[in-house]
This record gives sequence, structure tokens and C-alpha cells, in this order.
Amino acid sequence: MNSLHEPYVHGRSDREAERLHFQASKLAELLHHDTCYPPGCRVLEAACGVGAQTILLARNSPGAEFVSVDISRESLIRAKQRVSEEEITNVTFRQADVYHLPFRPETFDHIFVCFLLEHLPDPLLSITRMKEILRPGGSITFIEGDHGSALFFPDSRDAHTVIDCLVQLQREMGGNALIGRELWHLITDAGFIKVAVSPRIVYADESRPEYTEGVKNIFIAMIEGIREQAVARGLVDNETWEKGVRDLYRTTEKDGTFSYTFFKATGKKKS
Amino acid sequence: MNSLHEPYVHGRSDREAERLHFQASKLAELLHHDTCYPPGCRVLEAACGVGAQTILLARNSPGAEFVSVDISRESLIRAKQRVSEEEITNVTFRQADVYHLPFRPETFDHIFVCFLLEHLPDPLLSITRMKEILRPGGSITFIEGDHGSALFFPDSRDAHTVIDCLVQLQREMGGNALIGRELWHLITDAGFIKVAVSPRIVYADESRPEYTEGVKNIFIAMIEGIREQAVARGLVDNETWEKGVRDLYRTTEKDGTFSYTFFKATGKKKS
Repeated sequence: MNSLHEPYVHGRSDREAERLHFQASKLAELLHHDTCYPPGCRVLEAACGVGAQTILLARNSPGAEFVSVDISRESLIRAKQRVSEEEITNVTFRQADVYHLPFRPETFDHIFVCFLLEHLPDPLLSITRMKEILRPGGSITFIEGDHGSALFFPDSRDAHTVIDCLVQLQREMGGNALIGRELWHLITDAGFIKVAVSPRIVYADESRPEYTEGVKNIFIAMIEGIREQAVARGLVDNETWEKGVRDLYRTTEKDGTFSYTFFKATGKKKS
Repeated sequence: MNSLHEPYVHGRSDREAERLHFQASKLAELLHHDTCYPPGCRVLEAACGVGAQTILLARNSPGAEFVSVDISRESLIRAKQRVSEEEITNVTFRQADVYHLPFRPETFDHIFVCFLLEHLPDPLLSITRMKEILRPGGSITFIEGDHGSALFFPDSRDAHTVIDCLVQLQREMGGNALIGRELWHLITDAGFIKVAVSPRIVYADESRPEYTEGVKNIFIAMIEGIREQAVARGLVDNETWEKGVRDLYRTTEKDGTFSYTFFKATGKKKS
């Protein structure tokens, strides 16, 4: 298990950690309000990263016991620190690879997975592995974005080009930045029943400054984070990059609008 | 006023009329559930077409008085017939052009406009004209789609090509099939206050057969309706067209998914 060298398209810098926490707090209501686990149940959070979602999960379900795993030791250190600062006590952490989860079959009552599948070369295998350690009748929840959903005004070819750079880069690293639209078939293919997908749209215009800030600090910051790699790999030239990013920022000003869709999906393991 | 020759990208055939009614019934809950006018108020429905939305509007607000206008005499005949069949009595119809509305200033308490702006060469002018006949403090509501929001699995370049044909054709006719994302600035530019835009996403997969049917009967049928024009104008060749439409249908089968976003916006005229 090569925690620090495991490829992750966004990197694991301080700025990135901050971005992820901001993301979690801004999108919390939209993405997580309907995830609540009953007291006494055991929940696996697969790929907790720096703990951005862990805090929300644990707060929404104070009686549940969470086991949050991540492949990166560095991220786990940040996650532990954050949870401790927030005085949350119903979470334990463990270093683990989502393809080789160190738990006995049917260990968990529920499993929660957020922004993981998009980074995996074989998402279906990881879902199948998770299913093994889920008890019959237990639920699994996934949340993923889909960069193909980015819709903005003023529209701009260059802005689409810089977004496509992230899509391509993620694909080269074995991931899939367009995975939101695929949750239905992935969860169904893994043999879950009662699969339900619910799209969640984030929309920003001048009347919604908190969302406009979110677009800048979450989406555009994420794009900006891959500039060096995108240019180095010849996916884009410097001039187009700068124009594309400028055009993205333009969508957060006065008459601009920006929307993006996340997909949340749940399934049940047959009893 | 050249009602029967006024260009309308989708045409005014029987099949089209049926498509529009189907559309209204399937999307009704999503788009219209939060539009309700108090008893006694006077509401203009601008561009009622064949009355697909008229019925829903009138039923949701049985105490309000609707005046529904359209430029097409042929559409108005169908709309009247439909309203009469449904035994709805709080609607009167009038033939009128949305750029030259034959009403005195401040005649209406509220104005409702659905799927109109996308077809207009000058949407801002029409909004400004509507504002004149709205009383101070009155509300205006717009609902528009945005074909750039179509997101589907399996993804397909040819499917995007056939959608782009409609976007281009509509642009050539002076319209804008990507107008949903622009409602914010259009309504704001027209001087309305308290402008609020709310995106409404339609999502279809195998677990939602009614939505899958909607994708076929509304969205794909709309695309299929422009084949002749698109091919005649050289926007696409026959082979790509057929592949693109087949790929769109493919998104409504087994592991496929399809989503589309409508934008609903409201504004208030300053008191």
C-alpha cells in the first residue's frame, strides 16, 4: 500500500485540503441533508480523505459508529486532527485500500462513499468489494460529480477546453470525471437492489453570493490546480489556459451564471 | 400578424401538438407545482401555444382569471378546444404578438411565460413589453429549457451532434436553445427586482419509466422533428443523424441515463 505515492489528480497540498473542507461546508446541506444513520449502527466511510465529509456524517448521525478509511496516511492524519478539533468522538480511522478492505464479510450496516469512484480505474470492483463487507439488508450511498454537467453564461469554448483538460487528465490517471451519470449502472451491475439516483444541482448567480464563492473556491480552484500537468502534457497551451480560466471566473461576475450537477445514489444489499 | 407563417422551429403539426400536451402532463409537477395565483387576480399567459400549460395553470389557480395569448390562430383554436374539453372556465384567449401586447399599461397582476423566450430574436424587448402591462408589485415567471444541459450515458459524439443541429437551427431562426442559463441576466436587465432562478432537473433511468418515456416522447421526438431541415441545410449527413438519434434512444435503455435541466425564474416589478 503506497499511500503517499497513490496518484490523485488534485494532489494533497494544504490549499487542496482547505478547498476540500470549504467544499464540504458549502455543499453540505445540498448533498448530505438526507443521509442519517440510526443510533447503534456501524457505518463504513470509504475514502474519507482529509475528513471533509466525515465531520458532517458524524454530526448528522451522532448515535452511529463510523469507521473512516483512506489509502493516504497523510490525509488520515489531517482527518483525525480535524475530527478531534471538532470534538467528534464517534469516528475511528484506519488506513486501507478500497480494493482490499481489511474487514470481515458483513461487518457494516451501511457504507458511505463520496467523491471516490471518479478516481478509480475499476469502480465496479471496489463497489463489489464493499458489498462483501456490508450486511444483507444494509445500504450503500454514493455521491459523485460529473464535469460534463458544467453549464455557464457567458458560454466559452476555452472554458470548456480547460474543464476538458481535467477530464482527460483524470482519464489518463485511470479515473472518470464524468462518472455521475454512471452511478445507476455501476450500483445495479454490482447487484444492489432498490437503486435510486438523485441529481443535485448547484446553481450560482449574483443573487446567491455563497454559491458564486463556491464556484470560485471549489470548481475553478480545482481546475486551476491541474494547470501545470495539463500544459506539461500538451493538453492545452498557456494562452488558451489563461483565457479559459478567465472565462470561468467571468461566469461568477454580474450577469454570469454557473450550474453543476452532483449525483447521489443509494442501493440496498439483498436480505 | 402572420400567424400561420410565423416561424416556429418545432412546427405546428398534430404530432407536435400531442408532444406538447404530453410534455405538459409529464413535467407538470416538476415545473409548475409552485406556481399558484390568489383568487381574483388577473394573470397573462404569454404565448400559450396549444394550451399545454394553460390547463395546469388554470387548475392550480382556480380563482384567478387567465388571459392566454398566442400569435398563432391555429394554436389558439387547439388551446380553446382543449380548455373547453377539460371544462376549465377561468381562461379567455386572444391572438397577440408578444412584442405588441394589446393591453393597457399595468393591466395584469402577474405574468406567466413558458418555453417562449427561446424562440424570440429579442427576448429582452418582449420582457420589457410585458413589464409595461404588469402592475407595480406584480410578478413575472419564466420557464425555459437549455439544451446544453443534456447529459447522458452512454455518452455519444453523434448524439451531441444531433442536439447541436437543433441549437443551430433555432439560432438561424433567431432563437436561442441555450437560454435557460440566461434567465438571470435577462430578467435583471429588464429591471425586475427580487429575481430568483431555480433550476429543475429531469433525470431518467430504468427505475423511472415515466421519465424514460418522457425523454423519448419529449426530447428525442423534438430532435427527430427537425431532421429534414437539419439535413437540408447541410448541418449533418443522414448517417450521422441516424447514429445520433439511435444513440439518444440508447440512453433510455437498460443501463442508460439521461438528464436535462429546466430553469424557472421569477421577478417582481418595483412597487
